[in-house]
Amino acid sequence: MDGVYGSLNSIHRQQDTICALATPPGIGAIAVIRISGKQTFTILSKIFVSARPGFDIFKAKGNRIYFGKITDQESILDEVLLSVFKGPKSYTGEDIAEISCHGSIFIQQKMVELILRNGARLAAPGEYTMRAFFNGKFDLSQAEAVADLIHSSSQTSHDLAMNQMRGGYSDEIKQLRIQLLDFASLIELELDFSEEDVEFADRSNMLELIGQLQKSIKKLIESFSTGNVIRHGIPVAIVGKPNVGKSTLLNAILNEERAIVSDIPGTTRDTIEDTIILDGICFRFIDTAGLRQSGDTIEAIGIERTYEKINQARMILYVFDVSETSIEEINESLLDFQQHIESGQKTFILVANKTDLLVETPKHFGTFVDLETIFASAKRKEGLSLISDLLVKTVRKNLLSDQTIVSNSRHYEALIKASEALNYTADGLIKGIPTDLIATDVRSALHYLGEITGQVSTEELLGNIFGKFCIGK
Amino acid sequence: MDGVYGSLNSIHRQQDTICALATPPGIGAIAVIRISGKQTFTILSKIFVSARPGFDIFKAKGNRIYFGKITDQESILDEVLLSVFKGPKSYTGEDIAEISCHGSIFIQQKMVELILRNGARLAAPGEYTMRAFFNGKFDLSQAEAVADLIHSSSQTSHDLAMNQMRGGYSDEIKQLRIQLLDFASLIELELDFSEEDVEFADRSNMLELIGQLQKSIKKLIESFSTGNVIRHGIPVAIVGKPNVGKSTLLNAILNEERAIVSDIPGTTRDTIEDTIILDGICFRFIDTAGLRQSGDTIEAIGIERTYEKINQARMILYVFDVSETSIEEINESLLDFQQHIESGQKTFILVANKTDLLVETPKHFGTFVDLETIFASAKRKEGLSLISDLLVKTVRKNLLSDQTIVSNSRHYEALIKASEALNYTADGLIKGIPTDLIATDVRSALHYLGEITGQVSTEELLGNIFGKFCIGK
Repeated sequence: MDGVYGSLNSIHRQQDTICALATPPGIGAIAVIRISGKQTFTILSKIFVSARPGFDIFKAKGNRIYFGKITDQESILDEVLLSVFKGPKSYTGEDIAEISCHGSIFIQQKMVELILRNGARLAAPGEYTMRAFFNGKFDLSQAEAVADLIHSSSQTSHDLAMNQMRGGYSDEIKQLRIQLLDFASLIELELDFSEEDVEFADRSNMLELIGQLQKSIKKLIESFSTGNVIRHGIPVAIVGKPNVGKSTLLNAILNEERAIVSDIPGTTRDTIEDTIILDGICFRFIDTAGLRQSGDTIEAIGIERTYEKINQARMILYVFDVSETSIEEINESLLDFQQHIESGQKTFILVANKTDLLVETPKHFGTFVDLETIFASAKRKEGLSLISDLLVKTVRKNLLSDQTIVSNSRHYEALIKASEALNYTADGLIKGIPTDLIATDVRSALHYLGEITGQVSTEELLGNIFGKFCIGK
Repeated sequence: MDGVYGSLNSIHRQQDTICALATPPGIGAIAVIRISGKQTFTILSKIFVSARPGFDIFKAKGNRIYFGKITDQESILDEVLLSVFKGPKSYTGEDIAEISCHGSIFIQQKMVELILRNGARLAAPGEYTMRAFFNGKFDLSQAEAVADLIHSSSQTSHDLAMNQMRGGYSDEIKQLRIQLLDFASLIELELDFSEEDVEFADRSNMLELIGQLQKSIKKLIESFSTGNVIRHGIPVAIVGKPNVGKSTLLNAILNEERAIVSDIPGTTRDTIEDTIILDGICFRFIDTAGLRQSGDTIEAIGIERTYEKINQARMILYVFDVSETSIEEINESLLDFQQHIESGQKTFILVANKTDLLVETPKHFGTFVDLETIFASAKRKEGLSLISDLLVKTVRKNLLSDQTIVSNSRHYEALIKASEALNYTADGLIKGIPTDLIATDVRSALHYLGEITGQVSTEELLGNIFGKFCIGK
């Protein structure tokens, strides 16, 4: 990786023809090996023998499929389908060939070896997509979304990545940056005439513009915490006193929904967190067993930690034993609980569990405590779908209603830094500091916004981004 | 599987449009989902939106690639490349589309679900190749080679499968069968005139033909044991007295050659067998630790078992300590060893180990014992490449010189049965038994030969063959 990203601007490396397995490793019916670069057809002319006599690979047309053999000297490695894409009408913008061969590991290895021997080099992770970026096929934020798309494991994380790949908030950021550029050019103009002490840029107009920019950036920054929970699972805490059936309830939900309990890459998963995908949305359940104890110091630390975890939750399922608890008790313990946690974007759902122990189901809890209340029997698996429906409905209403969601932590950091630089700028304008200092702050804001879409890029930045891709993309 | 192969002749099932993931399961840059059947384009018309306005999937041309989106109602599942193949010019002989999408597991699952919801059913294992067989794209033995090719893990097993896929001994068997058919038709003709007691078929000519057929079939049958060892690894026993350095030698060979020690599917691999691929040939080393002990009954059983294993070996590396052993001793122990094992297709190689303990290397062992002798020091890793070169050379000379190798146990069994039926026929002809009995035996031979290439097939047979494929092929 270092070799490629350490010399990004080296025209030589960019002109190499690259090759990699594009399909997942392992045995399958077929595997696809991808070649991209100027030597693509020269390499194929040495190893591909078309089934059609007189075939000339250099005259092959784009977006066509050719049947033939891949041969190594005299011996046939495989019978393959060759898909040809002519640059610039291709994923990378270069000439591309995709060899669809039989999916044996042996053939996959030998095929790559053979292509390397004939003049290609192995592609670095994400190098195809990086070339697409360099050739203007995507902006940087779209390129990043390709990797997110490949690793998305639920409908919502998929939608987020797909939206970003198709443009997403790139355009919004580009627009913000253009407005800021107009502003910057006036400031730079003032610098040229600094000795004359003129003001081309009206200071109050400028402050107003910065205010508008900050408002848009703030909205994007705030969307990040939503984007983040969507990618890593929306944290849900199941809380309540001991023996009200919290674990039984969790297990019942997990089983009832034939949950896809998935390992999401990048999530720090301790064993006490379970993820479940309900209607395309990933939920991450937080264990609150720690709340059971109380008393001595060590246990108090445990409780403290549990509250910290609960504070991360977006939704709280507050469970009580409906057969043993009065309305007053619930109200009291709920108030007590709410005092221990931070208020904020949390949705409470009351679960009146153990309805199986009741003769008839009471109807008045919900209205009394002014929270959505679901009557359930975890033991008998009753009321579970009401709970999951309510979880999904709440998320759709509160989190997913906004179209523009920043889920990439790099973008988040760049937005924060751009916002800081704009704050300095506004502050400087108000205090009337020298124009050259203001210009520096504005340039800084422009830089960070430009980093998001790749209008400004450094080797280190690109290395960080594309190095995280899988090889072959 | 039962559902498909239990009703192979059902025109209805054959007319279904089938769909499956064709690439290995898991995350990759891209994944390919394959659709085959009459409804292929109808299904695509519901879910594929071309990037080109006014595009009509029903007018799409074969062997072309189209860029567009796969959509589920309003929402975009992915941006894809669609490869179109028009029957009969396709793998199955039917209309085929291959959707090349981003390789996320989520997208792969949703894509297959979406296609199923729009009118396809999930393909059974090997169902694409089975359709290719039914549509006359391959004979049965070629179809089987596709599965072998996908699971081949060394150059030789790959070559074997590739040779079979491209025709191999199919033609030879078809030719044998045609000759037998001529013969059978004369016999059947005699049956029509049975009351007149005529002989259309000259008995001595018939016996001669059967003799020729048997000769060809015998050659194919004999090649099976070679085909089998090529697929599962050529068994090599490292034998010798205790402390001559057998294990050190094996480990040294394994390490020195940076061995690809692979798990070959279908091999019964106990922990005491190591496989190594040298120059594309898979070798399976047999541990002979059991030979160390001798004496009481239980140990004798161990020795017995070890000799059984050694008897499976095609090659024997006989190791001795060159620093402590005289020529006479070697000769004697070698003779003693050879008395304990079955003679046959075994190649002996003498390894004069521990040359590091000698002042100068003696040159005369080789000539004296009339076996290839290699001087080595397993400890110092000397002479190892000589050993592996000799192993490879010997295999190439003794096993791989013949082009026609039967490696499929089903073919082997059919050949054995055909041979038996021909024996009965010849026996009947000599003894002058009634023509109708001879006719039965000839039909039986025809049946078994026809089973190899699929000229004769039953549902059970096809179910057995294609059921072993992976889904998607």
